[in-house]
Amino acid sequence: MSLRSPGVAMHCRCIQKESRFFGRSIEKVEIIPASSHCEETEIIATLKKSGVEICLNPEAPWVKKVIQMMMSNNKRR
Amino acid sequence: MSLRSPGVAMHCRCIQKESRFFGRSIEKVEIIPASSHCEETEIIATLKKSGVEICLNPEAPWVKKVIQMMMSNNKRR
Repeated sequence: MSLRSPGVAMHCRCIQKESRFFGRSIEKVEIIPASSHCEETEIIATLKKSGVEICLNPEAPWVKKVIQMMMSNNKRR
Repeated sequence: MSLRSPGVAMHCRCIQKESRFFGRSIEKVEIIPASSHCEETEIIATLKKSGVEICLNPEAPWVKKVIQMMMSNNKRR
């Protein structure tokens, strides 16, 4: 699993980051900005159906695009 | 509280949305795209220290800016 157990975030939660495209199967994303606990922004997506949590690569273009679409796609068409 | 208990997301989790600026006190944000359960994108911020969850207004300019900064501010300076 590419994610440590949440617990108290005294370190980075992501061990590995996925760059493969998961766009359509994302139920929600969690963005944890860089902090004293973890020097990097972490983006954790929860997948539909399985509920599995995966770490996304914040620098992958599709990740930025999916988050922008979530933000702008405010109302469900 | 402006948030329903998580449980199984069969409806919107946000009852009220905050437009006041909370930028610096945000520990993390959760973005839940519009879906069959909830017609609107929901953005739930967890505040530092208190751990309180608040619903942010996805259309408030500062919310979009904070999320963009989290995404681009990948490494802690």
